[in-house]
Amino acid sequence: MVGAALDPGDRGLQYGDGVFRTLRVHAGRPLWWRAQLAKLAADCARLSLACPPEASWRADLAAVLTGARPDGVLKLLVTRGSGARGYRPPVPARARRIVQFFPGPLPALDAGAGICARVCRLRLGHQPALAGIKHLCRLENVLARAEWDDPAIAEGLLLDRDERLIGGVMSNLLIWRAQCLSTPCIDRCGVAGVTRALLLEGARAAGIDTAEVDLTLGEVLDADEVMLCNSLMGVRHIARIEERVWPQPVISPRLATLLDSFDVDDQNAA
Amino acid sequence: MVGAALDPGDRGLQYGDGVFRTLRVHAGRPLWWRAQLAKLAADCARLSLACPPEASWRADLAAVLTGARPDGVLKLLVTRGSGARGYRPPVPARARRIVQFFPGPLPALDAGAGICARVCRLRLGHQPALAGIKHLCRLENVLARAEWDDPAIAEGLLLDRDERLIGGVMSNLLIWRAQCLSTPCIDRCGVAGVTRALLLEGARAAGIDTAEVDLTLGEVLDADEVMLCNSLMGVRHIARIEERVWPQPVISPRLATLLDSFDVDDQNAA
Repeated sequence: MVGAALDPGDRGLQYGDGVFRTLRVHAGRPLWWRAQLAKLAADCARLSLACPPEASWRADLAAVLTGARPDGVLKLLVTRGSGARGYRPPVPARARRIVQFFPGPLPALDAGAGICARVCRLRLGHQPALAGIKHLCRLENVLARAEWDDPAIAEGLLLDRDERLIGGVMSNLLIWRAQCLSTPCIDRCGVAGVTRALLLEGARAAGIDTAEVDLTLGEVLDADEVMLCNSLMGVRHIARIEERVWPQPVISPRLATLLDSFDVDDQNAA
Repeated sequence: MVGAALDPGDRGLQYGDGVFRTLRVHAGRPLWWRAQLAKLAADCARLSLACPPEASWRADLAAVLTGARPDGVLKLLVTRGSGARGYRPPVPARARRIVQFFPGPLPALDAGAGICARVCRLRLGHQPALAGIKHLCRLENVLARAEWDDPAIAEGLLLDRDERLIGGVMSNLLIWRAQCLSTPCIDRCGVAGVTRALLLEGARAAGIDTAEVDLTLGEVLDADEVMLCNSLMGVRHIARIEERVWPQPVISPRLATLLDSFDVDDQNAA
């Protein structure tokens, strides 16, 4: 569905029964298209949702990415469609595609300025059955994002109920310490984003040690560099968390370069 | 919004950013209307959502409850409406009402036959910031309801990650033991339903001891009677959970009578 109005009975609205992706579009081309589509399919599979085939998405993209090779943000949703009232998934379910495009300039991926972050009061709950999936049930993120107004603060950091640092409200977190790129485990809560996966893959291929670990806030504050990543901003250096300041990035410029290699792989994707 | 199509940018769809109510309608009249509206307002307040005034809902009801005083199921949703892309709630937010009516006969509220339940494998995660609220993020319920197909099983029981019994996939649970009506605490997960609240209130007014407690599955299986309740079925005796059988109800017929008194209070509500 592109631009059309939605059936209010859609299970995405009624129950959050669906998944989504947010993509950066440059010159009419969605970034990391194959990786994004693979993650969408993997998330659908976790919920026993039939992911629409690539051809359907391509037709949608042709409909929304019109005009002079636009820049902007693309959002793809898959819901379990409509069905009888009640939690029980309809069998067979007909998945529904919803595609939105928000045209407009985006900051460059290698924007050097570090970003300021705060620590959210909300603690993420644990639900291993949903951990890692970018599903439509995002009220925790909404409540966390409502905690601050200050436009100088670009992101809030989320801890879980056991005081482990999981990530940002809208990004994944990575740290550089002891010559190793570490990122929180996403097996109890949080979203395992595409940019995080590409960064880990690219780093390993470049001979950089990586690790998925449990991290306390203290360990993050002690790191040589702390970074956030998502599909819109790429990887970004954190300049400040509350009182702790990191004047200079250490590894993130190199990681940003590694991300570029994935872009080339997807040249012909859309 | 009644019957109309929905903006795909609605935050209810995008983030599960909203709440809902499911009401039983008999002869064109929604059951427990004032209690339902009070719970809707309380849930909205928890999410800093402006609950639409009663007059708006009344106008919606007049539009959907047409014809010869129909029976059926009424669903009321409030979402945080539409806004700019991103988790941050728009300020000011314009709440959106979505009203659906599913006409059709419903089983009598005092249907005597006990129901069969099973124990779900899914364990509810803890999120005190959302516990009790009937919000739109219901993927846990969807996954739990997908665990069984057997039409003889009417409900699945949900435990939390600490192996406490919290309730049914679409109902609250109460037990009768030691001459006390006990129901699980809903402070870490689960939905605190209107029927549960009315039952506790009615029981106390009738001189019956009540308690909100932590319950293990073993304690539930040891109870003299186990009941489920929601706004569609009222209060119902459980006849079987897995191998455990309760041939006769003990207290639920009296509780069902207590529920009737609340209905009278709402006679002029809609």
